[in-house]
Amino acid sequence: MKKIVVLGSGNVAGHLCKWIISSGNLLCGIYSRNKIKGKSIADKNNIEYYCSIDEIPKADIYIISVSDNAIKEISEKIIAKDSIVVHTSGGCGINELSPAIENRGVIYPLQTFTSGRELDYNRIPLFIEASNQDSYNSVKVLASDMSNQVFDSDSEKKRKLHISAVFACNFVNHLYSIGSSIIKEMDIPPQIIAPLVEETVNKMVAADNPFMTQTGPAVREDYNTIEKHLEALADTDYPRKIYELLTDSIINYKLNGKL
Amino acid sequence: MKKIVVLGSGNVAGHLCKWIISSGNLLCGIYSRNKIKGKSIADKNNIEYYCSIDEIPKADIYIISVSDNAIKEISEKIIAKDSIVVHTSGGCGINELSPAIENRGVIYPLQTFTSGRELDYNRIPLFIEASNQDSYNSVKVLASDMSNQVFDSDSEKKRKLHISAVFACNFVNHLYSIGSSIIKEMDIPPQIIAPLVEETVNKMVAADNPFMTQTGPAVREDYNTIEKHLEALADTDYPRKIYELLTDSIINYKLNGKL
Repeated sequence: MKKIVVLGSGNVAGHLCKWIISSGNLLCGIYSRNKIKGKSIADKNNIEYYCSIDEIPKADIYIISVSDNAIKEISEKIIAKDSIVVHTSGGCGINELSPAIENRGVIYPLQTFTSGRELDYNRIPLFIEASNQDSYNSVKVLASDMSNQVFDSDSEKKRKLHISAVFACNFVNHLYSIGSSIIKEMDIPPQIIAPLVEETVNKMVAADNPFMTQTGPAVREDYNTIEKHLEALADTDYPRKIYELLTDSIINYKLNGKL
Repeated sequence: MKKIVVLGSGNVAGHLCKWIISSGNLLCGIYSRNKIKGKSIADKNNIEYYCSIDEIPKADIYIISVSDNAIKEISEKIIAKDSIVVHTSGGCGINELSPAIENRGVIYPLQTFTSGRELDYNRIPLFIEASNQDSYNSVKVLASDMSNQVFDSDSEKKRKLHISAVFACNFVNHLYSIGSSIIKEMDIPPQIIAPLVEETVNKMVAADNPFMTQTGPAVREDYNTIEKHLEALADTDYPRKIYELLTDSIINYKLNGKL
């Protein structure tokens, strides 16, 4: 069992507190500059809130969970002689942490965190790295308490993970937004498409190779339907361009087996 | 309670049989040219299988659920003096059914159907139309028994629904495929991204306006990250083009409030 202090009060920090407690480790408290948010998280988890970084208790691992551009500054203020300091960012390398800290690490959870939403923490993959073997061992023990999915990852790997998340999540959200806006124009509630999206996603994530669960006019090479759709989108700018490019990409993958 | 006969033995027809029985209507049997598939569906649902269209019993509504290019031919063979004949296609209009049939209709379920997968039928939206008021009334009663989500829809509306489904489902599958192929290259199991995708989708379908749940470097206008990602994708063809176009589209929507 490790003694942990969380630094930050955003959505990730809020979930982290609950997560660490449920992992069986000892959460000694939370520090944040934002008193209202910090105290709210502390109260919810029945832990101590610290408004000054000089007052935070001694811990085995300090977890900094703040926006990327604040990691460096906050890490410089932690006195962490025998402790490990980690951050949770996918966008920053381990060297974003102050070089004055000997034992540095990263625990990057591949998930989108929203306050108040329930998550199955055990399933969330954690990508870890550390500045030396002892730190790595400690970080790995903590991460393995937190999740069944722990992987080693340097900054290069994290960048690729981030790119894949942009495709599979950020861009997916945008395409869904376009799809539901087309439905909205017809005075039909856009949520009616939700069961179809949910079933599509359940099928694709269960597939060994999601290219094989591809359906629709592009993979059928149904040029008649594609043409009618492009006619219907003729007055639009991005939707038409996106329809064309993704249709081409699907057909190209089907014919050539590569992206 | 209506007497129904289903014609076809594909994934939609298979689910339709189960769906009609669970709706409390009387499924009198299934006809299909494919004996093995037709009989298998009949056995699973404890109904009669007919291998000849001349033998199908008298019904209130015949539901043709076959591939688009076979609807016309099969509809011409049904003797349906006082009955209604409907098809379930999103891609065809009501006039795909033989003009010799007086009472025609469409019941289009907006869902992707796979044999063996459990679906919550009550939530699947049904889009209906009919050739006259009496037929419309009967089709509406059946559809309302089958689902809580019944909407009127002509062919024009169905085309738009189909386009929105291409964006929100077919293209989503392709983007997920690209994302998971990037992870696979690193010898990490691509399924590790599933919890993130599922949570992203749960959030976006629950949102009144999914444009508001957009996250990621594009909507943050984080050009530093975008540039690094495009560098990492420099050797790819479609992934780089798709990343550029969707990023532009998200930023354009953020700045101008339109697609």
